[in-house]
Amino acid sequence: MTLPSGKAKMLKIYVGETEKFGNKSLYHAILLKLKENGLAGVTVSRGVESYGAANRIRTTRILDLSADLPMIIEAVDTSETIDRVLPFISEMVKKGLIITFDVDVIKQG
Amino acid sequence: MTLPSGKAKMLKIYVGETEKFGNKSLYHAILLKLKENGLAGVTVSRGVESYGAANRIRTTRILDLSADLPMIIEAVDTSETIDRVLPFISEMVKKGLIITFDVDVIKQG
Amino acid sequence: MTLPSGKAKMLKIYVGETEKFGNKSLYHAILLKLKENGLAGVTVSRGVESYGAANRIRTTRILDLSADLPMIIEAVDTSETIDRVLPFISEMVKKGLIITFDVDVIKQG
Repeated sequence: MTLPSGKAKMLKIYVGETEKFGNKSLYHAILLKLKENGLAGVTVSRGVESYGAANRIRTTRILDLSADLPMIIEAVDTSETIDRVLPFISEMVKKGLIITFDVDVIKQG
Repeated sequence: MTLPSGKAKMLKIYVGETEKFGNKSLYHAILLKLKENGLAGVTVSRGVESYGAANRIRTTRILDLSADLPMIIEAVDTSETIDRVLPFISEMVKKGLIITFDVDVIKQG
Repeated sequence: MTLPSGKAKMLKIYVGETEKFGNKSLYHAILLKLKENGLAGVTVSRGVESYGAANRIRTTRILDLSADLPMIIEAVDTSETIDRVLPFISEMVKKGLIITFDVDVIKQG
């Protein structure tokens, strides 16, 4: 699970906090799926406001406990490994955004 | 508001939580402005500590309820759309950082 | 401490919240070190879930107050300045991930 220094790819996924995959939260299901596929690391963050495909603004600004906040998933790995997981991640994410971009790994340990 | 797969651009903006634009929070005014201009999606996150142009460290580490925490705004769209909004976003952001970088859209839906 | 518009580099670092550097939090020690070295700005965010080198899943999902949450540090500066700080940042980060990638600075002020 150690990533060599040099050229690599960032996989970044934006989904709603309340989206489900089976009986799990989609963002957590994605983390588990990436782990199962040997990705070197995954980090999940929660945003405070967003709008997207569904075109509604989701926010914590008003006291709406049912707000569907944005979850941001980041994973860095080799280009080959990221390309290998994209088909089933695309399949899991019905509503949301999946992007990749080139990065340089300086250190992973 | 659907974004095709392929080459695209990330617009990322860092501003202080307490910055205002008219009587609105600047970060929320930026989200509304990007939405009004048809951007496919925008996500706002709140950081916990930062320093920047003003050179002060802002933090949640001490119990300072008036801390001006960093807000991070991310939007992905075509290069043309991002370039079109940059002039007025630059005008709105007096203190802060605006960057762009190339990304590949794998899926947006 | 002002950054000119144009080509620049993002330095992004992922470490655990409980990691220490001397008697400080590692993420805060990194922010201070980058500030001391004149970086134009640094933003720190806290994630909600991750796994990495240590291969454990860290999460806020269960009520585990001792959870070692992921901290994400972002700094944008010229390529030269980022390259100059990488050696000692690599030395500070024993467990974690350090990446860089190219960005365009539209405005910093």
